[in-house]
Amino acid sequence: MARAARRSDAQTQLPAEQGAGSLNFEYLALLDAPRVVVEQVSPSIDEGRFAVKRCVGEPVEVEADIFMDTHDKLGAQLLWRKSDIDTWHAVPMKLVDNHRWSASFTPPVPGFYQFAVEAWQDEFATYRDGLLKKVRAGTDVALEIQEGQLLLAKAVKALEAPGNAKRLASELEPLEPSDLDLFLPAYAESQQDFLRILLSAELSRHVHTRDFVVRSREFPLRIDRKTAAFSSWYEMFPRSQSGDASRHGTFDDVLERLPAIRAMGFDTLYFPPIHPIGRLNRKGRNNSLQAQPGDPGSPYAIGSEEGGHDAIHPELGSWEDFRRLREQAAAMGMDLALDFAIQCAPDHPWLTQHPEWFDWRPDGSIRYAENPPKKYEDIVNVDFYAPQAVPDLWLALRDVLMLWASEGVHAFRVDNPHTKPLPFWEWVIREVQDEYPDVIFLSEAFTHPKMMNRLAKIGFTQSYTYFTWRNTKQELTDYLLTLNDPAQVEFFRPNFFVNTPDINPRYLQHSGRPGFLARAALAATLSGLWGISSGFELCEAEALPDSEEFLNSEKYEIRAWDWQRSGNIIEDITTLNRLRSQYPALQTHLGVAFHTFHNDQVIFYSKHEPGSALPHERLIVVAVNLDPHHVQEGTMELPLHLLGLQDYDSVAVEDLTRGYRFDWHGKWQELRMDPHDMPYAIWQLQRKGPLP
Amino acid sequence: MARAARRSDAQTQLPAEQGAGSLNFEYLALLDAPRVVVEQVSPSIDEGRFAVKRCVGEPVEVEADIFMDTHDKLGAQLLWRKSDIDTWHAVPMKLVDNHRWSASFTPPVPGFYQFAVEAWQDEFATYRDGLLKKVRAGTDVALEIQEGQLLLAKAVKALEAPGNAKRLASELEPLEPSDLDLFLPAYAESQQDFLRILLSAELSRHVHTRDFVVRSREFPLRIDRKTAAFSSWYEMFPRSQSGDASRHGTFDDVLERLPAIRAMGFDTLYFPPIHPIGRLNRKGRNNSLQAQPGDPGSPYAIGSEEGGHDAIHPELGSWEDFRRLREQAAAMGMDLALDFAIQCAPDHPWLTQHPEWFDWRPDGSIRYAENPPKKYEDIVNVDFYAPQAVPDLWLALRDVLMLWASEGVHAFRVDNPHTKPLPFWEWVIREVQDEYPDVIFLSEAFTHPKMMNRLAKIGFTQSYTYFTWRNTKQELTDYLLTLNDPAQVEFFRPNFFVNTPDINPRYLQHSGRPGFLARAALAATLSGLWGISSGFELCEAEALPDSEEFLNSEKYEIRAWDWQRSGNIIEDITTLNRLRSQYPALQTHLGVAFHTFHNDQVIFYSKHEPGSALPHERLIVVAVNLDPHHVQEGTMELPLHLLGLQDYDSVAVEDLTRGYRFDWHGKWQELRMDPHDMPYAIWQLQRKGPLP
Repeated sequence: MARAARRSDAQTQLPAEQGAGSLNFEYLALLDAPRVVVEQVSPSIDEGRFAVKRCVGEPVEVEADIFMDTHDKLGAQLLWRKSDIDTWHAVPMKLVDNHRWSASFTPPVPGFYQFAVEAWQDEFATYRDGLLKKVRAGTDVALEIQEGQLLLAKAVKALEAPGNAKRLASELEPLEPSDLDLFLPAYAESQQDFLRILLSAELSRHVHTRDFVVRSREFPLRIDRKTAAFSSWYEMFPRSQSGDASRHGTFDDVLERLPAIRAMGFDTLYFPPIHPIGRLNRKGRNNSLQAQPGDPGSPYAIGSEEGGHDAIHPELGSWEDFRRLREQAAAMGMDLALDFAIQCAPDHPWLTQHPEWFDWRPDGSIRYAENPPKKYEDIVNVDFYAPQAVPDLWLALRDVLMLWASEGVHAFRVDNPHTKPLPFWEWVIREVQDEYPDVIFLSEAFTHPKMMNRLAKIGFTQSYTYFTWRNTKQELTDYLLTLNDPAQVEFFRPNFFVNTPDINPRYLQHSGRPGFLARAALAATLSGLWGISSGFELCEAEALPDSEEFLNSEKYEIRAWDWQRSGNIIEDITTLNRLRSQYPALQTHLGVAFHTFHNDQVIFYSKHEPGSALPHERLIVVAVNLDPHHVQEGTMELPLHLLGLQDYDSVAVEDLTRGYRFDWHGKWQELRMDPHDMPYAIWQLQRKGPLP
Repeated sequence: MARAARRSDAQTQLPAEQGAGSLNFEYLALLDAPRVVVEQVSPSIDEGRFAVKRCVGEPVEVEADIFMDTHDKLGAQLLWRKSDIDTWHAVPMKLVDNHRWSASFTPPVPGFYQFAVEAWQDEFATYRDGLLKKVRAGTDVALEIQEGQLLLAKAVKALEAPGNAKRLASELEPLEPSDLDLFLPAYAESQQDFLRILLSAELSRHVHTRDFVVRSREFPLRIDRKTAAFSSWYEMFPRSQSGDASRHGTFDDVLERLPAIRAMGFDTLYFPPIHPIGRLNRKGRNNSLQAQPGDPGSPYAIGSEEGGHDAIHPELGSWEDFRRLREQAAAMGMDLALDFAIQCAPDHPWLTQHPEWFDWRPDGSIRYAENPPKKYEDIVNVDFYAPQAVPDLWLALRDVLMLWASEGVHAFRVDNPHTKPLPFWEWVIREVQDEYPDVIFLSEAFTHPKMMNRLAKIGFTQSYTYFTWRNTKQELTDYLLTLNDPAQVEFFRPNFFVNTPDINPRYLQHSGRPGFLARAALAATLSGLWGISSGFELCEAEALPDSEEFLNSEKYEIRAWDWQRSGNIIEDITTLNRLRSQYPALQTHLGVAFHTFHNDQVIFYSKHEPGSALPHERLIVVAVNLDPHHVQEGTMELPLHLLGLQDYDSVAVEDLTRGYRFDWHGKWQELRMDPHDMPYAIWQLQRKGPLP
């Protein structure tokens, strides 16, 4: 039974036991090759290259395939730790089925974690299993008892004399399984004593021998605060909050607006850049090349003699004003989110302080941002790989984020991250979150899916999505199923914005109020993260001709709005956000299933609560008329099967927006939706009585 | 334009340009972080942990997702080499679509290969693309021409004076695309000269600047000879080839049998162990515990005083006899395959020469193989991790394989590899194939799928399968689809044995001849690798009661057979093997599709040729009546869509077993199959005329 050459102790014991003379160092690596297989560890992204994302309080269920040659018994544990320097915590893993093992842990606070799976051959458990079978078959086990003693001696010191054995036998729990009492009398009394010990259930729980211990690689895990996955964003230009288009709005004006925004249920208030705006080549209204006197310019043309990314545009107010606003927002349960847009106006201080960070042309002029033949004359891009840019520029940009984070800004919407180097993001997000674990990064990358996914993998907490352009039932269904793909859910958190200052969706340009209601209902029920840009609640959709740009866009001028203007959908938005906070099923894009509605203009889906297994106790079901102009009707097929019900069973229904309760009988129900009345409906279905 | 801090030259240039004073070594790693993304490289198994399998002459199509921030132009190449010390060969990669690039290469000889994908930003291509757009828009490009000269100077030395430019312009190929001639006249003549050069199609093909070069990890690739994937195995006990059950068969008797076996179309002749058989605890007929005098014992109880794994059982003949047989088989185009069964009879020489390789009990007795409470008294297992077993035992086992490989045995069927350590197999297969690249290892592991897959991943060339127990249409369909799963096909080559000396399938025990025909047709058409154990061609299926063991199994006694006995299916097997050699679609388990046959007893499928894309020019289609007792009939739905045909089109048909030709009109065809006549049919469908 003596096995020296096991992986667990190979390096230390082998040379001594073999003697230096016989040792063939060339083959030592063979002893280290893992005999126990640990593979298909989940959750994992690209075999552990990137961190899986979860939120605080969410159990992390880790699984792995574990097996080895022979039918020997195995043991396994899940190891986890916060950061890569803390000590490991161990959780025993259990065999689920078919060589798949599992265990879970719940990370207590936001941060970067690691987990690994460790497995081993359990010689004592293997021995006990064989002994059990032999005793049941009445085989002579004299030798086996000797072997058991030797094996046990490896783990338990006190078990040498029969007296000790007898005492131990009387102290140990009764045998399990109980049928053993039938078989033991076939053995001599002294053997019975040993067998009672060796087969004791209690012993089997406490004595394990670990050989051929193998540990998986360390899998990274990013734990965010809960708002990383469930939050409702409201975007506004602070300068448009004065109520007077001729007066530049201030942080104090925003302060006045907070109660109304919070009352609608939004909990993240997001500002486009609030830094000084460049004067050189400033853009005029509607993106015109020549600014007129008094035109405020685009806040995305960052920097002037008044300062750069680390300064506040003087007309918005002072640092004190900003801090007061942030504190008031926090007191009301709202996060402030800032834009992080790396480009500079030509008069940004960095151009004179750090000309080496920019791309100069042979004639000494600066290279403007361009997408040939288009040029963007009001901004220039930094050159991330210019000489000295690494690390000077990278550190400067990191310090901008650090500054705002230190000022309590723990959410950043990042402008066009896909046009900046991926290694920069991977590095800077880690740097910031190492210091401020609460910080959220929202990627504003409207580009190809592979890049959007990569940005999410390298660290972006959330991402803008294609939702804004998915209008038909088929498009929405396909997109949601993509977002629910098992490979995708580990890293990609979609934030469904219904509009942005850059996107005035064509659907809304022609839909009128019914379309705004439909899109709000879709975004608010299909994703844990949704957002609106101010004006959406007023059904504002005036556009430049044949364009997704707003007419008189707030990007280039100060606007004033009547926040109670007729036709607004504030009440609906308020209801939607209230339902989101009440029903966990609406706090995620996961758990969605699409069901038949016999009319292509009506989309019909259900959401179940995270962690709820089939059959579900209850379900949220939603129907939305996607046609903003016409009444649509048809038969919907309730997902009674997901509740463990038969097609003709009854189900308890609560209309969550109207607040009344009733029963539906059978899965086929007729529905008529008038977009001018209410283009969406949200019900909760609840199983009546226990499962049969 | 000067960019020093690029990955391609960061380490060498950065310190010099920045000066040692300003350099921050802490951040040097940032310059090495790959800016260009190369991901989802295929083919790959577990992100490159294991070697993808291909055969000589088969193109290896490598693809990768390649992208970076910005819209800059990229370049990429596939690198490949044989072994990890040869020099790399480079093949340019082309953009397929959606950021996916591809290239292929064809490994010339068997062996271990590696490939990698290298990608980079191409600044000159990016520049040219922008210039092209600007010229078409008629923009002033004076600065761009200067920039182009600088850029080009990096790559082409001769381009400094306008005279040179003019000369070069006249020598270069005409511009592409041709519409440029429309736009050039808008520029001054001297500018036109430069533009002709800078935009020249020829230049764009030859001038590339490579920045931010990134190389993927090296992906391993195993190239086998073609028979690794396409071969027909015939298994026999040489001792049963004398034609007289009372006379021990010899290699010379096998020699006599070669023409008949080759005539059936088999090209691999496989013997169970041919080594001396232990006398201690020898098993008797039908696996009885007491051998009678004259009982030959199981050849799997390897070793006696006459020798071990490196010796030949004297009654079979001498080394010279063996070599003569091997040479004759080779001359006829047949491989010899030997069993590699690691267990030892208790009188194997190793027990006395190397007692330390075995597991001894406290009383000094040897531990027999057991599966509690069962014991296998005629064999003992080596202990792979006993002290000194690594490397002594491992080397001894390797040398056994090396010995037989040196004797021209280039195929090994490995007995129960799943009960021996995986690291041993991974090491020993590599050792043997490094020396003998032609060697094939067939894994006889009938165990859970994760282990079977792992054995294939770590190096086994082929594997036995569950085919032997998949009898119904649903079972066969599910199993073949599993084997065709994209993740599986890269490493798992199934060998469909219809029976083995250990497996007398229950289906065949009751099916009679029709069942043998059906199973032969299924195996021979569904997999590139199939095999029979001798007696199958005689429809032999006499079994021990309620068991999958043969009655009077050749494992424990010498048998004699009448190879022409009535009811044999030699003619059908011959036809099946002939069709396999004629039609590439039958030389693989890939390319299968199952089609509707309106009768659950009839399975109906098509096979297309490897590499053939939709719509196919031709298809093999097969129908098999799985009911060996009754006539079955029904409508089959021909897969005309796979041939690019409509449901009512006509298709040319050749009945490949009967040899006649006809047309079918429309996809719905009636078929009646009498198992006592012919339980299977194999046709070739061919599109008539070109695609519409």
